[in-house]
Amino acid sequence: MNEFNLIKTYFASQRAARPDVLLGIGDDCALLKPPSDQALAVSIDTLVENIHFFPTTSPHALGYKALAVSLSDLAAMGAEPAWVMLALTLPEAQPAWLEAFTAGFFELFQHYPLQLVGGNTTRGQIYTITTQVTGFIPLGQALTRAGAQVGDDIYVTHTLGDAGIALQGLTGKLQLPTAALETLAQRLHYPTPRVSLGQQLRHLAHAAIDISDGLVADLQHILEQSQVGASIVVEHLPLSEILQQLLPELAWSTALTAGDDYELCFTASVEQRSVIAMLSAQQGVGCHRIGQIEKAPGLRVQYQNGEDFSLTQSGYQHFT
Amino acid sequence: MNEFNLIKTYFASQRAARPDVLLGIGDDCALLKPPSDQALAVSIDTLVENIHFFPTTSPHALGYKALAVSLSDLAAMGAEPAWVMLALTLPEAQPAWLEAFTAGFFELFQHYPLQLVGGNTTRGQIYTITTQVTGFIPLGQALTRAGAQVGDDIYVTHTLGDAGIALQGLTGKLQLPTAALETLAQRLHYPTPRVSLGQQLRHLAHAAIDISDGLVADLQHILEQSQVGASIVVEHLPLSEILQQLLPELAWSTALTAGDDYELCFTASVEQRSVIAMLSAQQGVGCHRIGQIEKAPGLRVQYQNGEDFSLTQSGYQHFT
Repeated sequence: MNEFNLIKTYFASQRAARPDVLLGIGDDCALLKPPSDQALAVSIDTLVENIHFFPTTSPHALGYKALAVSLSDLAAMGAEPAWVMLALTLPEAQPAWLEAFTAGFFELFQHYPLQLVGGNTTRGQIYTITTQVTGFIPLGQALTRAGAQVGDDIYVTHTLGDAGIALQGLTGKLQLPTAALETLAQRLHYPTPRVSLGQQLRHLAHAAIDISDGLVADLQHILEQSQVGASIVVEHLPLSEILQQLLPELAWSTALTAGDDYELCFTASVEQRSVIAMLSAQQGVGCHRIGQIEKAPGLRVQYQNGEDFSLTQSGYQHFT
Repeated sequence: MNEFNLIKTYFASQRAARPDVLLGIGDDCALLKPPSDQALAVSIDTLVENIHFFPTTSPHALGYKALAVSLSDLAAMGAEPAWVMLALTLPEAQPAWLEAFTAGFFELFQHYPLQLVGGNTTRGQIYTITTQVTGFIPLGQALTRAGAQVGDDIYVTHTLGDAGIALQGLTGKLQLPTAALETLAQRLHYPTPRVSLGQQLRHLAHAAIDISDGLVADLQHILEQSQVGASIVVEHLPLSEILQQLLPELAWSTALTAGDDYELCFTASVEQRSVIAMLSAQQGVGCHRIGQIEKAPGLRVQYQNGEDFSLTQSGYQHFT
């Protein structure tokens, strides 16, 4: 089976046909008609075997996650997903692997009006998956990392730490009950990009980021680019019930420093509290206040009683 | 040195600042203002160590080629290059490697109004470089593979076979004089995307493709998508002087079946011959007539005397 048949067989199964895709997969380039009144939000992300996933990770989860993490970047800007490109490097062309991978990858196409507009399949010793996405956003309405203002509340969505604890369980650093590990691993492998919430936050939030490298590391990007500081309270970090029961103290430090949850962290003025509470209820996604933006530079992580919480690592960084 | 500093240090050196880049590298997404009256042409390509290049290939050449092959896709559609995204997977963060790679990568920015608008750097055991490019093209003017018409002349640009012969020399399959190998390897490592010519061909050519997998394989894409056939004459294939002197017979079969030249193959009606000859002279890029589009399906490769030329392989295909 050669490269061309591969692409045709497994990636031609998408049913999407956006009217703004003038020419889809199958030529030197795809041809796209961009919207005239909106900005394009673009992001590119790579998942590498042995670095971002295990050789044992299911190809279905991989396909899902490769797209989910890119959609999470669009969510953090408040963009509406539109076009996807996929560059896939594989040691060999196994039909079973490709079937499962594409099933996971196309699963998210059921929730968003996405179309795959380009792809590239190459042989290589290590599974490497690069996803490029483009979303639309009305001009001037994008959420960036740079808009946080002193006095803003800091929010995170849903719960933090599940993915990080799952990773520790899967790598044997932590012994977890089998049922708990399965539940937590689901959060690691199938993160939910907060796309709809991100779009609803366009007029409400001052700054936003998705939590891929851990809350501390990612919130610090907001602080740096907004030239502000912040304090957060560990008891206000939202934890899943399973983590509260299993290991609340460890969950806090994991929620603060481990990545892969792909929840949103955003800031908004105090006046927006009731609107955000309503939005949170409407969307069915918890938006939890965990701290405040402050003038003094740096990030202070504290207990509710004001004592400092000790952080031993500041999030996942490549090449360190 | 962590991922974030890496990106800042080596990729912040670009001086480009396109007015349509509303927000560049450094947030979850870049924000782009697309042109209102043009289509976007998009392409994504991956180069993988041990598959597309040798561990000994210079990082400068790699950086150059990673971008050049993507620009070649834009050239084949007649698009004007605009935005670039780069996903880079490296075993380790060596400053010398990164300096040379980015120097090669940014070299093409001197010739085209490109801006790097997104990047992703990850650790991984195998060097893997994915480049995504976006170009602009007035609506309805793109060159595709589907427009070839019976009676059209078939053209290829410049010369074919140098890159393929260089590859055979570098892998030891062919013994070449050192000076010749150096000259030929330059063509393998530093292909010239025919961007300007591609744009000039918008109103002249009926169909176009860039030759990445070998003339026979790539011309067959035009034939399939245009639902036509063709005949070409081997003596009309343009060969470099060095190949004519060294090994003309082998050069023909290499020009027909090996890839990596990144020249354009296009078709145009007989009435355009004089205009294309003028354009060829203006651009300083030879446009050589090598055959005709015909009604009978299939590709016939012949000597000038009408005898069939025997082809042993039909171009590089992954996973075969």
